Amino acid sequence: MTTGALDREAALELDASSPLAGRRELFDLPDRIVYLDGNSLGAVPRNVSERMRQVVDREWRSGLISSWNTADWVNLGRRAGDKIAPLIGAGPGDVHVGDSTSVTLFKTLVGGARLRPDRRVLVLEPTTFPTDAYVAAGVAETLGLELRWCDPSDPAASLDEDVALLALTHVDFRSGAMFDLPGLTRAAHDVGALVQWDLCHSTGAVPVDLLGADADIAVGCTYKYLNGGPGSPAFAWVHPRHQSAWDQPITGWFGHARPFDMDRSFEPAEGITRMASGTPPVLALSALDTALDVFDGVAMDELRAASLSLTDLFIALVEDRLGDTFEVITPREHARRGSQVSLRHDEAYGVVQALIERGVVGDFRTPDVARFGFAPLYVRHVDVFDAVEHLVAVMQSEEHLRPAYAVRNAVT
Amino acid sequence: MTTGALDREAALELDASSPLAGRRELFDLPDRIVYLDGNSLGAVPRNVSERMRQVVDREWRSGLISSWNTADWVNLGRRAGDKIAPLIGAGPGDVHVGDSTSVTLFKTLVGGARLRPDRRVLVLEPTTFPTDAYVAAGVAETLGLELRWCDPSDPAASLDEDVALLALTHVDFRSGAMFDLPGLTRAAHDVGALVQWDLCHSTGAVPVDLLGADADIAVGCTYKYLNGGPGSPAFAWVHPRHQSAWDQPITGWFGHARPFDMDRSFEPAEGITRMASGTPPVLALSALDTALDVFDGVAMDELRAASLSLTDLFIALVEDRLGDTFEVITPREHARRGSQVSLRHDEAYGVVQALIERGVVGDFRTPDVARFGFAPLYVRHVDVFDAVEHLVAVMQSEEHLRPAYAVRNAVT
Repeated sequence: MTTGALDREAALELDASSPLAGRRELFDLPDRIVYLDGNSLGAVPRNVSERMRQVVDREWRSGLISSWNTADWVNLGRRAGDKIAPLIGAGPGDVHVGDSTSVTLFKTLVGGARLRPDRRVLVLEPTTFPTDAYVAAGVAETLGLELRWCDPSDPAASLDEDVALLALTHVDFRSGAMFDLPGLTRAAHDVGALVQWDLCHSTGAVPVDLLGADADIAVGCTYKYLNGGPGSPAFAWVHPRHQSAWDQPITGWFGHARPFDMDRSFEPAEGITRMASGTPPVLALSALDTALDVFDGVAMDELRAASLSLTDLFIALVEDRLGDTFEVITPREHARRGSQVSLRHDEAYGVVQALIERGVVGDFRTPDVARFGFAPLYVRHVDVFDAVEHLVAVMQSEEHLRPAYAVRNAVT
Repeated sequence: MTTGALDREAALELDASSPLAGRRELFDLPDRIVYLDGNSLGAVPRNVSERMRQVVDREWRSGLISSWNTADWVNLGRRAGDKIAPLIGAGPGDVHVGDSTSVTLFKTLVGGARLRPDRRVLVLEPTTFPTDAYVAAGVAETLGLELRWCDPSDPAASLDEDVALLALTHVDFRSGAMFDLPGLTRAAHDVGALVQWDLCHSTGAVPVDLLGADADIAVGCTYKYLNGGPGSPAFAWVHPRHQSAWDQPITGWFGHARPFDMDRSFEPAEGITRMASGTPPVLALSALDTALDVFDGVAMDELRAASLSLTDLFIALVEDRLGDTFEVITPREHARRGSQVSLRHDEAYGVVQALIERGVVGDFRTPDVARFGFAPLYVRHVDVFDAVEHLVAVMQSEEHLRPAYAVRNAVT
C-alpha cells in the first residue's frame, strides 16, 4: 500500500529510527486504538497504576497522618513542578502545581494585574480557550478592569501604556496555531505591560523557554501532553524577578510562610510557594508526579522534531489522499504550528464520530473542526499513516453522513 | 483491669451493642494503631483501593477521553455532593464538590458578600481555622471590605446592619467547641446579614441541618470525617433561595451553562453548578465518591450518639485516671461539643509524641493542646479505653519529658 507521500513501511522505518522510539512502551495504550486526542486527555503512563496503589494502600492506609512528613506529601506540588520546569524553560523551585487550570488562571491574572496597579486594561485574544476568557471576565469584574480583545493576527497592535497584562494562549486549542512567544513578550514589555502565557496546549509537546524569552507569568494544564490524568492540577510559573512582590488573592494556609504555626495573620511564603492556597491534592499530585517521569531524559529538540515530523506527515497524507476535501486550518509554517492538526469540513462532527467507530480517536470542536493531536512520546508515524487510511475509507464510504450525525453536522 | 468509670469489658460490650458496630469493617485500619486523628485525615475505606484501580486502569486507560461521558466523569462532583447532602441537611443537587477548601472559601465569601452589595463588613471569629482567616483577609483586600473580629464567646454581639456576612466555623479545630448553628443563623438574619458555616470539623461526625436552620452558605472539607483522602476536594452549599443570584468570582468553563458550546461569553449554569470553575479532579473525586459510601444507611442520630458516648468516655477516663493532670478544654455540655476532645498541658507536644510512639495517634496544636478526634464510624469504646491506658502509662513513666521533645514542649 503506498501513497504519493509515504508508504506504511517507510512510516515504520521512521518510527524505528526515532530517538523517542522506546518512549511509547512507557504508556499503557489500549490495543487497536489510534489515539490522536492526547491534546485533550493524555494516555496513562504505565507507572501510574502502581503509584496509586502505593499512595492509597501504603502512604494513606498505613502511614495515615504521618505521611504528610514521611511520604513528603507537603512538597509533592513542588516536586512535580520541578519535573515540569525543564519542559518550559523555568528554573527549579519556580513552578507551583495545585489547583485547577481555571482557578490557577484566576490567581495569576489577579496577581499579574496587581504588579501593574496603575494600569487598568487586560488584553485577551478572542480565540483563546473559553475558560481563559470566562475567568478573565470574572477577574475584570472583580478588580474593575477593562477587558480589551485584540486581533489574533496581531495582538501587539492592541498594546499601549494602559495595558497591565497581555494574556495569550501559546497554542490555539482549535487551530493549533502558535504565537511567537518571545516576540510578543518583547512587544508587551516595550509598552511596560506584563505578559501571561497559557501553555495548556504546548507543554510537553512544544519546547518553551520562559526564562529565555524573559516572560512574566505562565499557566498550564497537566492532563494533556503531560499525562497527569483527568482533571489533574495545573501549574503556574512566575518569573523570579516578580516573586517577592507577587500577591495572589487566594491566601490560604499552604501559601503561608509557616503554615503549621497557625498564626492568625497571613504572611506569604517566599518564592512560588505563595501561589499555593489549600491543602495539596495528594492523590492527583501523586499520579502527576509519577506520570512526569516519562519525560525524564527527553531532549526537547528531539520532542519537537518528532512532533513536526508527525504533523507534517499527517498534512501531507491528507492532502495527497484527499485533495481539498478538508481545509487544513493549522499553519504550515513550523514556527507557527503546535502539535496538532485541525481540519475544517462541513460534516466534521460526522467525520470524527465515524473515525472513532473505527478506533481512530480525534475530537470535534464546534462548529466544523476535526482536531487531531500528536503526542510525540506515544504517537507513531505508522499511527498517522493508519489514521489517514481510515479517514480515506470514511470519506469514500460516506460513513460521516450517517443519519445519527446529522444534527451535529448541521453547521449553524 | 478497672477504672472508676468503666472497665475494658464494659467498653467492649458498648461496642458490640452499638448500632454502628459493623461500620469499622468498612475501613482498612493498620493493626495495633489507635487512630484518634480522623479529624485531621480520615482512615481509608476499603472500597477506595479498588475504585482507584478502576478509574486508572479501566476508565482512564481504556476509556480515555470517552470516559467523560461513558464513566460520567462530568457529573462526579455532583454525585459526590448528593452523598454529602443528607449529612448536612441539604437537598439533592445543591452540594458542589471540586476545589480545595481554601479556594472554595474564597469563592463562597466573595459570592456571599455579593449577595449583600450595600454592606461592607465581614465578621469572623479569631479562633477560626487559620486558612479561613487568611482567605477572608484576601477577600476583604480584593473587595475592599472591612474584617471585623468578633468575641468567640458571643459572635452575635458583633452583628449590625453593616454586616454582609458572618463567617463561622461550626466546630473549633483546636478546642472542639461547637457553635449554636441555628441560633447564630437567626441572629445574623435578624440584622439582615447572611451566614456562612465552615463545616470542616463537623461533617460526618456531627449532624447538621442547614435547611432546617435556614442557613445561607456552607463549606466543608472531605478529608477528615468524610475520609476522602489527603487533600480531597471540598464541598460547598448555597441555599436554593440564593442560587439564581449567586455570583462567584472564578467563572470557569465547568460553571458555564453550556461548557462544550465553547461560547466566548460566560453564562452561569443553573443552580449550584455555577460554583464549579475548572475541569473536575476525577481521580480525587472518584476516591471521595466511593469513600462516602461508608455513610450509606447511617442514621445521623446514631452517629451523634456514638460520638458523644466516645467523647464522654474519654473525658471520664482521663479525669478518673489522671485527676487534674490535664485541663479538658472541650465543652462538657453536649450541645456545645463536636467529635473531639482537647487536653491542655504544658508538655502537650511530648505527650502526643510519646503516645504516637505507643501507637495512639492524636495530634498537637500550638502552643499546648493535645487533640484527639473520635470518628464514630471506626473508633470504638475499647480504643478509647486503651488510649487512656497508654496516656496513664506515658505520664507515670514521664515518657513525655524525653529530651527530644523539649524544644516543642517549651510553651512560649
